[in-house]
This record gives sequence, structure tokens and C-alpha cells, in this order.
Amino acid sequence: MERTLIEDLHGHVGKEVTVAGWVDVRRDHGKLVFIDLRDRSGTVQMVAHTSTVPEAASLRSEWVIEVKGKVNKRPEKMVNKDIPTGDIELEVLHMAVLSQAHELPFEKDTEVNLDTLLDYRPLTLRSERVRDIFAVQATIMQAYRQSLINQGFMEFQAPALVGGDAEGGAAVFKVKYFNDKTAFLATSPQLYKEIMVGAYERSFTIAKIFRAEKSATTRHLSELTQMDFEMGFIEDHRDVMAALEKTVRDSVREVVSKHPGVFTKFNTSAPAVEKAFPILTLKEAHQIIEKEFGTATAGEQDMTPEHERQICEWALKEKGSDFVFITHFPTEVRAFYTYEHASEAPHSRGFDLLFRGLEINSGSQRIHDYDEMVKRIKNRGMDPEKFSFYLQAFKYGMPPHGGCSTGLERFTMKMLDLPNVKEAVPFPRDMNRIDTLLSEQ
Amino acid sequence: MERTLIEDLHGHVGKEVTVAGWVDVRRDHGKLVFIDLRDRSGTVQMVAHTSTVPEAASLRSEWVIEVKGKVNKRPEKMVNKDIPTGDIELEVLHMAVLSQAHELPFEKDTEVNLDTLLDYRPLTLRSERVRDIFAVQATIMQAYRQSLINQGFMEFQAPALVGGDAEGGAAVFKVKYFNDKTAFLATSPQLYKEIMVGAYERSFTIAKIFRAEKSATTRHLSELTQMDFEMGFIEDHRDVMAALEKTVRDSVREVVSKHPGVFTKFNTSAPAVEKAFPILTLKEAHQIIEKEFGTATAGEQDMTPEHERQICEWALKEKGSDFVFITHFPTEVRAFYTYEHASEAPHSRGFDLLFRGLEINSGSQRIHDYDEMVKRIKNRGMDPEKFSFYLQAFKYGMPPHGGCSTGLERFTMKMLDLPNVKEAVPFPRDMNRIDTLLSEQ
Repeated sequence: MERTLIEDLHGHVGKEVTVAGWVDVRRDHGKLVFIDLRDRSGTVQMVAHTSTVPEAASLRSEWVIEVKGKVNKRPEKMVNKDIPTGDIELEVLHMAVLSQAHELPFEKDTEVNLDTLLDYRPLTLRSERVRDIFAVQATIMQAYRQSLINQGFMEFQAPALVGGDAEGGAAVFKVKYFNDKTAFLATSPQLYKEIMVGAYERSFTIAKIFRAEKSATTRHLSELTQMDFEMGFIEDHRDVMAALEKTVRDSVREVVSKHPGVFTKFNTSAPAVEKAFPILTLKEAHQIIEKEFGTATAGEQDMTPEHERQICEWALKEKGSDFVFITHFPTEVRAFYTYEHASEAPHSRGFDLLFRGLEINSGSQRIHDYDEMVKRIKNRGMDPEKFSFYLQAFKYGMPPHGGCSTGLERFTMKMLDLPNVKEAVPFPRDMNRIDTLLSEQ
Repeated sequence: MERTLIEDLHGHVGKEVTVAGWVDVRRDHGKLVFIDLRDRSGTVQMVAHTSTVPEAASLRSEWVIEVKGKVNKRPEKMVNKDIPTGDIELEVLHMAVLSQAHELPFEKDTEVNLDTLLDYRPLTLRSERVRDIFAVQATIMQAYRQSLINQGFMEFQAPALVGGDAEGGAAVFKVKYFNDKTAFLATSPQLYKEIMVGAYERSFTIAKIFRAEKSATTRHLSELTQMDFEMGFIEDHRDVMAALEKTVRDSVREVVSKHPGVFTKFNTSAPAVEKAFPILTLKEAHQIIEKEFGTATAGEQDMTPEHERQICEWALKEKGSDFVFITHFPTEVRAFYTYEHASEAPHSRGFDLLFRGLEINSGSQRIHDYDEMVKRIKNRGMDPEKFSFYLQAFKYGMPPHGGCSTGLERFTMKMLDLPNVKEAVPFPRDMNRIDTLLSEQ
């Protein structure tokens, strides 16, 4: 008999169906055994008589079973309104064990510390909390891409292996390449997506990037997923901010639409995106922080983590937005390719997007003139010769352009108010963690 | 004035518009200059009088310009039916140069050898041929994902950095990790997507994988993009093949629908996918090859590149399909996790999918029983202890499952009948190529 998904059982009341999944919970009531069965679409309560279904007596958590049963309506007073299948029950007629499970080290929905959560990832991935996190993350990825495609962006694959050390120094992982050459792991797809703009105007990539920083914080990772886009023929950085605002809003709305109950489960609420994202210059943000929170900001050229939390608190309260843009950073604290208009110096056309107290995106208008770019590279003490591949894009005609990069893990973290970014990565890597017990030798 | 995309000019005949893009071609006729302007949506012919638009006289290929002009219908006999805008022309009223270009080393649409093509990638990306290749590739990626999502698969990000050397030996790139540890670049997301099946039943990832093989052929790369999926609760490998056939057919149809003219441009035709993909055992395939092509296959345990070409030729001619499945390979030539049913030994439940003479996908039903998996690992001379993270998924209850992996670059290559897989990668890496001139120091 064809398998029926649990979410589709409502259409089969009074009929016989075949379902399959994992034993989520099992409760013994003498000759009656109640089993919550879990598949990819949901859970359902089943009831089995051990006299007719002897297999039910030996079941344990996470055993994988296939069940033939009859879908019954529950009596009114037995209805569980908290789950979608709370008004039905499956009466087990026949059961086959597809796979047994060893005794669990702990029940999968037990709250455990981060190290245990990750050491037992193949088990803890099955908990409701973790399944929710990665279901939301999957929705973010596809919604982000679809929004960009709708705005005329073309996806491409940026390389992870690069020949040059783009950040220059200790923060880059080295790879032993062919013929004793050293290669590096990309720290950003930036230069490649600019090259793509020269051909396609609007390009995006969801790319892995790698950071060898010795930072062990709640928001740093050694391997990250960046959602990067870049667009040509802009007036200035505000065109990029508008495209980003649309993409972020589309992504949030898709999460809200696909996962309506998830925010309550995580003790948070759907991000406020209906109002325009406020835009503040760094100076304005500092003034607000001083005035509203009494925090000194004099001489600061950037936002500290505390400033980021405070300005987001203000933006939600005063502007009804969980997102806020900060602009007008000093050119010297931004990447070398950031565009500075002579009349706006010493500020440049960069921006950060903060979400619930954390920077999740950084972007800018970029320099597009070849001579200007060569000059900037030299001014930063670097050698234009070493950028000659990248510089071809500028030599052969590059439109005014800009772009930005959203950290997928940080976006997910703040969407669900997770305390540590590592919870937003299925298999996180950091200074102390890289699973070693997965190899063939 | 708001910018109008070239593809939208038809709606503005008789009106003034602003367009922007690159000078694709420029032809001088004394005081009249004809310019083909290119933007992300197409090209259009413009005409400028140098008396009123002096900028037109100094334009060169790839200069970036913004133009105010009037959209005119062309006289009937001047219509160019080969391009979508062949019935209109833009009369230039005003022109601004946004960015000049240096003299090109060669015209961007010149046919050049592979090394030149890649050495000048920022320029050659702008050629019509290359833009078509990556537009088709972008369509494949999104169509492949959307088809899997529609079939209930959930996307996840598999790690690129792994702690163990999954292939064991020289074919794996080594990374200097923290604290003098050695990490490795993933050669497959296989073990991670199986872990995901334990939680989500159906998972997929588009992941970078890395191969340090010293192979310099027309179909090998050092960095590849794999489109991997894995599904639980299957009867056998044929369920995986059915899901794959649907995904491939959906992707091909989307390319045909979005890029109707592309196949003619590449001197090929849309892949034949309307008929069911033929399924042959290895033995049947060998028999056909011997009979139809007179090629000896005795003792072969796999398909040689020549066999792959021959059986595909047969499948198209006899079965009307550009794709063909091969099954029933000997277990010993397949990956350690491949499922072998006792009654089917020495064959296992693996398959390859061939497309126009090339293997583009390999998959199988996998072992799902913990004890069986431990036994197989030992039989292959490996140590189960070193797989303990992976093995958790099996220890805690794993359904019968299987999956497969499509090489994005090979799929793109065969879709457009490209002679070398490196043409299907924007920035390819191989033994001899990794762009080094992109760094900050």
C-alpha cells in the first residue's frame, strides 16, 4: 500500500492507510501501547494492542517502523488542540520494524549544553527545536534567492579555492595545492561577484567563506555561508540598500508564511518588517545612543556590539522596525574598494544592516573607475600587479555598482533569537570543533 | 528619468527613454554612428549624429554609457529578424559616458583557445557564448532545487572543511587548521546528507567538493559543484532513480522554456527527455555495446568512457532518450555504504546516470542497518571507531534510504555540448590553474 504522510491523514478518516516514521514517544498502558509516530510532515498518536501487534511491546525511541492502521476520529474530550493531528488517532493493525535503535544517551528533546548538542548532532538534529531551526534556514535560503532572481539577479558559483591571500595574513586558511603551491580558502566572493557584474549587471551567490580568526564568541564561525549580491548601474549605495531591504523583507515574510507557529516556540515574535527600515548615519546613531542610553561614543569610528544592541532597541521602539541601516562610516575603516565621493570625504558610501542587535549584512557602493581603483590599492600599501586579474573587469568598462553580503547563520540566529550562532549551523566549525570521527582512515 | 531595460523598449515606441549599458559594437558612417548597446536583458541598435552627440565619436567597445533617446520603428526593409529588438532603433538625443574602457586585447566574441578564454575571464565572460552558458547554469541550479523542494526535500549546508580524510590519501586537499591540526576539504557531502535523512527524511545540498587528483582531462576539475540529494523510506534504488529522473526532466524543461534559442546557438538540440529514461543493467549495456558497436567488454566491471558514449548513442536512437541509467554494478567497485541484498550479490543497488555520453550522476540505495554498516566498514579494512560521528545516525534508527549526486558542471557541459568542462565553470580550478592575481598582498 502507498505510504501516506502524517500531514495528509485527515483526508483518510475511517480508512486504512500505511504510514512510516520514527517512534517519537512510547507510553505503556498495560496491554495498550500509545506511540507518537514522527515523519517529515508531523507526528500522530497511534494506539496498538500488544495482543494483536506484539511488535509494539518491544519498541523504543527512534526505532523506525512501518504501520498499517485505521484512521479514527478522536472523541471530542480527547482532542489535543496543540498539534495538527490532535483530533485523530491511528489504530495499528500491523507493524513492521524497519530499523532498531540503540538505547539513547538522552531523550532527543532534552535540553543539553552546546557541546553535547553538537557532539550528538546526528541525534539532536531530530529534536523539534533543531528541526525547526534548519527548516527555517532552508526557507530563508530559497526565499532570498527567489527574491533576487525576481529582481533580475543571476546566480553563479564563486570559487572557494583562491590563489591569493585576499585578507593578507593569519585570518586565512592555507591549502596545500598542486606542485607544492599554496592556495587559500576564500574569505569572501567579493572580487568575483564584481567581475560578474561586468558581464551580467546583477549577480548573486550563496558561497562558503572561511575565517581562520582565533575568535571564540557566540557569533563567530570558521566556515560561514554568505548570501552575496552585487548590482550595476546604481546611483549610489541607497539603490543597494533598497534591493537588500526588499530581499530581507521577502525572506522574513516567507518564513512567517511557511512557519507560522515557530516564533512562539522560540519565545520570540515575527521580525517587524512592515515599516521602512530606518536609515541613520553613524553620527546620528551615536547621538541617539548618547541621548537615549547615556553611553559615551566620542571618537568611535564604528559601532560596538553594545551600540548595535542599543540602536536596534531604539529602532524597534521608535520606528517599529527590527532592522536598521547605519551609513556614513569613515572610508578608512571600510574595505579598499569602497566608493568615496570627493564631496563626502572622509565618509564613504558603505552601510551595515543591523537585525535585533547584530550586524547581519555589510555593503557599499564600490569604486568603478580603473585609475581610481589602482590608486586606492596603492594608497592601502598594496600592489596593483597582484590584483591584475580582478582589475581586468575595471579596465574593460565597469558601471557604477555596489553590493552587500548577508551572513546566513547570523540571519537565522536572530530570526529565532538563538543564543549562539553555532546553533544555526548543522555542522559548525570553529577553533575547537571540526568533526574528526567521520573518516575512512 | 527612470532607466528602461532593452527588452522593454517595444512598449515605448515613439517615446523618449533612458537606457544604459555597454557598447557592444560601434560602426562609423561619417557623421552617423551606429552603436549596438548591451544590457543584461539584450542588445539594441542606436544611431547618433556626431554633430549633436559628440560623445559618440570617441566611443570604443565596452565603454559604459547612459543614453537618452527616442524609440523609433524601423522601416520594413531594415528589420533584423534575428534579434528581438530588430524592428526598432534608438535615436540618441543625449549620451553620458559612465566608464571608459582600455583598448581590448581582442574583441570579446572572438574565438580563443581555452587558456586565453580563462586568462581573460573578466572580458570573455561578456561574450554571448559565455553569457549563455552561465545563464543556463543558473537556471539549472534553481530548477533542480525547486524540483526537489516540490518533492519534499529540505536544503541544508554541508561543511566544506572536514576533520577526517574521507577518501584516504593523495586525492584530498589538506588544510592547516587551528593549533597545528590538519583539516581536509570535503570530497563529498555524502555522510552529512545521510545524517540529515535521520532527521528530515529528504535532504539536499548544492555543495562544493574538492579533488586533488592529478587528472588533466576535458572532464576533471579540482573544485566542483555537486547537487546531492538523499531520501528515506524507499523500497530500493529505483525510488531514488524515479526522483532523479523527475528532477532532471524538470531542470531540462525549465532550460528549454527559459532559453528557447540557446540550443541552436550551440549547434545542438534540446535534450530528449519526453520518453522514460531507459534502465539497463551493466551486463545488458555490455551486450548491446558488443552487438551494436562490436566493442569487446568481457571482464569489464564498469563502463569505460567509450562504452558511455556508445550506450548513449544507442539510447537516443532506439529509445528516444538523451539519458540512460546503468544498474547492477559489482558491489566491490562501489562506495562502502552501497546496499547489497543477499539475493542479488555480487551486485549492489547502485546506478549511474549517463547524459550524452558522460556520467553526470551516481547513486544507490545505502546500507541503513548499524551492524551491517560496521561490518562493511571493517570488511573494507577501515576502522569503525573513526566513523563514530557518522555511525550515530545509524545507531539511533535509520530508515532504508538512498540518494545520488549530480555534477553541475558536467550537466551544464552536456546540456550545451561544450567540449571541455572548464567552459562550464566561471572560475575553474585544476592542476595548473588557480587565479593568483587577485590578492591584497
